[in-house]
Amino acid sequence: MRYKVVLQYDGARFPTGWQKQPNKSDSVQAVLSCAAEKLFGYTVEFYGSGRTDGGVHALGQVAHFDLQKPHSLKTIHEGLNNYLRNTGCVVMSVSPVKEDFHARFSAKNKTYEYVILHSRSCGVFDDKRVWWIRNSVEVNWDLVASEVKKLEGTHDFSSFRDAKCQSSTPIRTIDNVGFCDYGDKKLIWFKGKSFVHKQIRIMVGSLVDIGRGKLGSIENILASLDRKSAGPTAPACGLYLKEVRYEE
Amino acid sequence: MRYKVVLQYDGARFPTGWQKQPNKSDSVQAVLSCAAEKLFGYTVEFYGSGRTDGGVHALGQVAHFDLQKPHSLKTIHEGLNNYLRNTGCVVMSVSPVKEDFHARFSAKNKTYEYVILHSRSCGVFDDKRVWWIRNSVEVNWDLVASEVKKLEGTHDFSSFRDAKCQSSTPIRTIDNVGFCDYGDKKLIWFKGKSFVHKQIRIMVGSLVDIGRGKLGSIENILASLDRKSAGPTAPACGLYLKEVRYEE
Repeated sequence: MRYKVVLQYDGARFPTGWQKQPNKSDSVQAVLSCAAEKLFGYTVEFYGSGRTDGGVHALGQVAHFDLQKPHSLKTIHEGLNNYLRNTGCVVMSVSPVKEDFHARFSAKNKTYEYVILHSRSCGVFDDKRVWWIRNSVEVNWDLVASEVKKLEGTHDFSSFRDAKCQSSTPIRTIDNVGFCDYGDKKLIWFKGKSFVHKQIRIMVGSLVDIGRGKLGSIENILASLDRKSAGPTAPACGLYLKEVRYEE
Repeated sequence: MRYKVVLQYDGARFPTGWQKQPNKSDSVQAVLSCAAEKLFGYTVEFYGSGRTDGGVHALGQVAHFDLQKPHSLKTIHEGLNNYLRNTGCVVMSVSPVKEDFHARFSAKNKTYEYVILHSRSCGVFDDKRVWWIRNSVEVNWDLVASEVKKLEGTHDFSSFRDAKCQSSTPIRTIDNVGFCDYGDKKLIWFKGKSFVHKQIRIMVGSLVDIGRGKLGSIENILASLDRKSAGPTAPACGLYLKEVRYEE
């Protein structure tokens, strides 16, 4: 019996990120397996739509897992949340899926949001939940808003790819990008089937450097196919895995 | 030299609440004094617009304090925030005030917000920041919205007053109340010069019980002048001191 869960987690509570690591209990996967084992009495593995790095948050991560026999959705949902209490991870919904459903391979697209706070002080409710840039640093957000559109479409993203990326190709397609400016907060979002390692954070770090006048244009960075031409990797704490979509 | 600060704090980090207690270092007042002593090298006392209970949050608490000699606002602001790092309290702004300014006695009015989440799951970013009521509990929010208006004006609030209240009178004036319904979240706010001990939380606890059909009307509760006729005290974690206003 295969089930799908939609998860939220606070990246600040998971320095190891999504993926289970040997001898570490502070990954999201480990915390979920531990809760499921307490609930069902046997080992349950969780397969995510993708790994998130340490510090990265999720508003709608999706994972699947198999149970030895069917249980009511209420039992799974409330039982898991009971054992997840105070871990910083919570199950938002549970649904039964077909045996061939796979959280990663069945995914149609994913949306990531990146939140920047550009202000004098970082409010306490935003601590570790945004990238705080002091307003003494000048950023041309109109320029950022126009540059971000140039990342849309199919490109060779070598310039925006972390050296540790294990993917066989740097080619990716970004279906949609967006920029919202609401006062002190700036939100940049990206929708696509998949991304290379740290792509979102390197794109955001580069966009901010362009806005600060420290870097040229997105076209030039893309064309160089060189990580060194892009900006720094933006901090993990501003990044949210917002939503994963599947075929109906 | 007297200064005024506007503060945010996460009540979850302050189980003792605003007020300094003997042998306890986890009140907001103690944490502020400790930061100021490190910055200026002598004891600085902070006087708040009012005490908040343990677990209650602040978006705009106001306090004043005296320094032995003037400092730049930037030094005070950034210096305090430097020593407040990771405490759950942050200075949002600093301004110089006249010698007769008093954060409590000069206040014209205060606004408190109470946030309820009425949903199946409590998202991880709302943990300890809302009163979570499971959506299996039925609440008539339209009734809550109409009952809350009856609290406006000058009343004897004996029914909504905690037994430990030290005020000489239960008479208070609520200038304004409001109810916002945005999806799963319900926000109730109250503006007034001052409130009796735990008044907001007892009003909210009673309004929810009215919405659940467990209690009669606000008029009857007010008229009884009896704490027993009101509902339970709503949890501290849903309450925010939003704003304190002063004469220009």
